[in-house]
Amino acid sequence: MSQFKFDILKQHESTKARLGLIHTPHGTIQTPNFIFCGTKAAIKGLNPQQMKECKTQFILANTYHLMLQPGADLVEKMGGLHKFMGWDGPLLTDSGGFQIFSLGHGSVAEEIKGRRNSSRPKTMLKITEEGAKFKSYLDGAIHLLTPEKSIETQRKLGADIILVLDECTPFHADKNYTARSMRLSHRWADRSMQEFKRHDNGKQSLYGIIQGGVYPDLRQESAEFTNSLDFFGQAIGGSLGGTKEQMYEVVDMSFTYLRRDRPTHLLGIGGLKDIWEGVAMGVDTFDCVHPTRIARHGHALIRSADTDHINIKNARFKEDANPIDEKCGCYTCQNFSRAYLNHLMKAQELLLIQLLTMHNVYFMNQLMEDVRTSLENDTFLETKANWFS
Amino acid sequence: MSQFKFDILKQHESTKARLGLIHTPHGTIQTPNFIFCGTKAAIKGLNPQQMKECKTQFILANTYHLMLQPGADLVEKMGGLHKFMGWDGPLLTDSGGFQIFSLGHGSVAEEIKGRRNSSRPKTMLKITEEGAKFKSYLDGAIHLLTPEKSIETQRKLGADIILVLDECTPFHADKNYTARSMRLSHRWADRSMQEFKRHDNGKQSLYGIIQGGVYPDLRQESAEFTNSLDFFGQAIGGSLGGTKEQMYEVVDMSFTYLRRDRPTHLLGIGGLKDIWEGVAMGVDTFDCVHPTRIARHGHALIRSADTDHINIKNARFKEDANPIDEKCGCYTCQNFSRAYLNHLMKAQELLLIQLLTMHNVYFMNQLMEDVRTSLENDTFLETKANWFS
Repeated sequence: MSQFKFDILKQHESTKARLGLIHTPHGTIQTPNFIFCGTKAAIKGLNPQQMKECKTQFILANTYHLMLQPGADLVEKMGGLHKFMGWDGPLLTDSGGFQIFSLGHGSVAEEIKGRRNSSRPKTMLKITEEGAKFKSYLDGAIHLLTPEKSIETQRKLGADIILVLDECTPFHADKNYTARSMRLSHRWADRSMQEFKRHDNGKQSLYGIIQGGVYPDLRQESAEFTNSLDFFGQAIGGSLGGTKEQMYEVVDMSFTYLRRDRPTHLLGIGGLKDIWEGVAMGVDTFDCVHPTRIARHGHALIRSADTDHINIKNARFKEDANPIDEKCGCYTCQNFSRAYLNHLMKAQELLLIQLLTMHNVYFMNQLMEDVRTSLENDTFLETKANWFS
Repeated sequence: MSQFKFDILKQHESTKARLGLIHTPHGTIQTPNFIFCGTKAAIKGLNPQQMKECKTQFILANTYHLMLQPGADLVEKMGGLHKFMGWDGPLLTDSGGFQIFSLGHGSVAEEIKGRRNSSRPKTMLKITEEGAKFKSYLDGAIHLLTPEKSIETQRKLGADIILVLDECTPFHADKNYTARSMRLSHRWADRSMQEFKRHDNGKQSLYGIIQGGVYPDLRQESAEFTNSLDFFGQAIGGSLGGTKEQMYEVVDMSFTYLRRDRPTHLLGIGGLKDIWEGVAMGVDTFDCVHPTRIARHGHALIRSADTDHINIKNARFKEDANPIDEKCGCYTCQNFSRAYLNHLMKAQELLLIQLLTMHNVYFMNQLMEDVRTSLENDTFLETKANWFS
């Protein structure tokens, strides 16, 4: 018997935004919400207790990294990912596909977001009907990831919500390639679901992923396919175009075809503006490495019409006795000045990463709370319009 | 009116060990106790709240580093070191001398502990009656640190307990050099005290430092000098010899001459065995970078007759579901297995440093609590004899 349930508490009148609850065996997620990236079974710089103190409800880990180190068998032996990483709240794992194709093509992550190619060595060897063959980034060993293997690995890891294996097509793929790739992903999704059902004990739930690149007819075909399978939730994947505008178009278009009774996740997107736009289009959950990654470069998220962050290294903070954000309730803003953080940056002190990550995580969770409160109070559009000013 | 007071609660019968309380404007320290190094106004990897959760009572910061970056004037402007670094408990600063001479001779820290020379560039330029001239390790700028300047700087920083400027003589210094150096340090101590009294408002207290290297007559002379000045407390400094045995001899010898109504600190020493031996000889407080430094190299402190730590990288921990120490009450041991920490090490995850530092800090504080409890319960010698087994 499944321990999962999705409740839609309230539908916004003039947009697709909605308030909801995703119930999992490890607790309930209030939606809209944000999922933080604990790639290798750890948030870079914060422990699980700190994540909770920063109001985090949902964390993800990456199957690709964990299957290579320490391996899914070891994690299973240690009692599963929740116990292994000391996080007792809701957890999601991806299929492992994204990183294979990303490292493989050398650029999927960049391309999906419309950035130029990176110069990483390509480790993707071959995509066949069976699965994706790739070289480990750690030791060069050759692995084959099939839909069955991905689900088996995710079952051993034991996250609450898991994803089907899909092929991530690069942005420059033409319509023919995108269509062929999408149909392969559909067959893989079918196999993922079959493998999932073979062992389903109600403790995990499976999300489908809608493909189709920037092409409306393909998005429709993929949505209809995804709608027809017995998924608990769904994610919007595939190429989202080369610009923010195109990304919003693709996401919006996808929602015209996707069923609305399932929680819907937008893969890898989580800019501050993207959150408000995405929620308005119907997105329930987001994930992005941005908040934690920029912290490691000395950047702190702020509310501003001009920029989403300040760089704490900037000389103008040297004697600034104010916190990053006067209204922020996080430990960092309650206790430390910009001058102190600027000093830590110059002194290359490790503590800086912890303090900035804490602020950025709290900031995102506060943003999501603001989104939910505005839906609750019927002030979503006004709050969306004014939040940055 | 001074806000400082030292209470001796209980004197051990057969050793010089004792239980005490050091009262400061920022709280009371139970002695014997350990001071953790927050060199640049930050504990590497832990925030002040975490330090408290790990039962820390006392932290130090280094005047040398802070006078160069961000500068004592800035710290003062930001409300002093307590406010700047978000630590509201007792704080100590050193005089700045140790690092000048350490970086200067290229090796004082190593030599005091009997280790071989390091190959650092020498930045000490000249020692005169006036003070020590040195090059900044940051930008090569030339600075002169005088006793007055050191006290002024420490006054601006605003720690509770501050130290006189002394010359740190290298281990290989002969008796003549050691004697001359000691007398220079005495004159500097005199000047430090005069400068301290000029501005004393009861919010800081000054410790003297006993010199004299490994020579009993010099240690006696230095103790008698230090005893005669109006210090609140005293530290054992200077060269402590080339071996652990010699170090214990020098410390023990120093206590024959030092007055016992003042809290006594042993500078830079804090091995697990050193703690028990030092307490038995009369030491009230210790400091050492060891617990926090080894954490950054993947080492976790343990109770064992053979070694003071395990290296979490070791392959035998790969599938070890036990915590570092089953009896330890720290967050790390309560929540994570050695297998997880081993994984974090292999994955080069930042979180490892935080989790190991937390364990090592808690471990030291638990050790100090065990020492105090044994004094309280009149089981000091038995506990000392059996603690490692």
